[in-house]
Amino acid sequence: MGATLDDVALDILVRKARTQNGWLPTPVSDAELQAIYDLMKWGPTSANCCPARLVFLRTPEAKARLLPALSPGNVDKTKAAPVTVIIGYDTRFHEVLPKRFPHRPEMADNYKSNATLAQTTAFRNGTLQGAYFMLAARALGLDIGGMSGFDNAKVDAEFFPDGRVKSNFLCNVGHGDPSRIMPRLPRLTFEEACTLL
Amino acid sequence: MGATLDDVALDILVRKARTQNGWLPTPVSDAELQAIYDLMKWGPTSANCCPARLVFLRTPEAKARLLPALSPGNVDKTKAAPVTVIIGYDTRFHEVLPKRFPHRPEMADNYKSNATLAQTTAFRNGTLQGAYFMLAARALGLDIGGMSGFDNAKVDAEFFPDGRVKSNFLCNVGHGDPSRIMPRLPRLTFEEACTLL
Repeated sequence: MGATLDDVALDILVRKARTQNGWLPTPVSDAELQAIYDLMKWGPTSANCCPARLVFLRTPEAKARLLPALSPGNVDKTKAAPVTVIIGYDTRFHEVLPKRFPHRPEMADNYKSNATLAQTTAFRNGTLQGAYFMLAARALGLDIGGMSGFDNAKVDAEFFPDGRVKSNFLCNVGHGDPSRIMPRLPRLTFEEACTLL
Repeated sequence: MGATLDDVALDILVRKARTQNGWLPTPVSDAELQAIYDLMKWGPTSANCCPARLVFLRTPEAKARLLPALSPGNVDKTKAAPVTVIIGYDTRFHEVLPKRFPHRPEMADNYKSNATLAQTTAFRNGTLQGAYFMLAARALGLDIGGMSGFDNAKVDAEFFPDGRVKSNFLCNVGHGDPSRIMPRLPRLTFEEACTLL
């Protein structure tokens, strides 16, 4: 049996961690954002393709560019969060794949010749990295609140006008206001979600 | 500042954890699989949609149904792993969404009336849950090796013939053979992957 996390760590990561809907004014430093990235980057991706691209919105001016794309229910909490990150993925990740997977640079050809495979790979692995981002932030003592209620096309036009990077989802980062947490919602049981063969 | 994970925990989760290519014969119990699920299920998903569906292949007979769909490089390690899990997603997750999001059951209508949104939401959130699965397994002392080198259509025809669940990626689970780990591959720097606005 390998080494395991203790109960405190499991609680911080997921068991007692909660999606945040309100935010305290405590700031998040650039050093903390870098620390999140330096942790999440080690999470596994297919052929080390690392397609996630993160845009950190730290100022009211930067947030103002995002707000018109948000669902109404996501506006106030995004304004209040110290940082909102746009988690996107590089649709041309394969152009830098030879540097990421140097022992088999020809892996890039699989994606160059198959746009559907490249898109699916970028979206899947960029999403895995989005999950690593959220858990890394929690591991470092920050709270998060992911959001997919927004207009991806509007975000892409505003932040990624050359079309190379596509937005995936958004995540507020900071220190949550405990008074704004919703009651915990019921998960599927093992029997509902899993099959043993 | 919230509570944080210590260095040992961060090493177990990602910093020293490695994708496994070979497996020791140490078995993985059903109780361990249930413990992984009971941890991963708390990871956040959009509107608590929880679309991931897991099929655990624990026997040579169950594995034999998967092997014809695998890329050649994934066959031997999948045979050797104590358990291989098919991480899929329920394309009709919205049918059970009113139980998952009981205070706003009308959320399900957004997905019922928009098949593209439902597919994207199932794939995105099922992938987030796939990442939670991998990190939960590591948190509980197990090793993992994710794989997307396989024919999804073949896996779907064999394991999900009614078309409701779609395969996303595969993951071997067990205790890795340290002699089969590859050298660690270079990640993008913060400056390459991130933008501060």
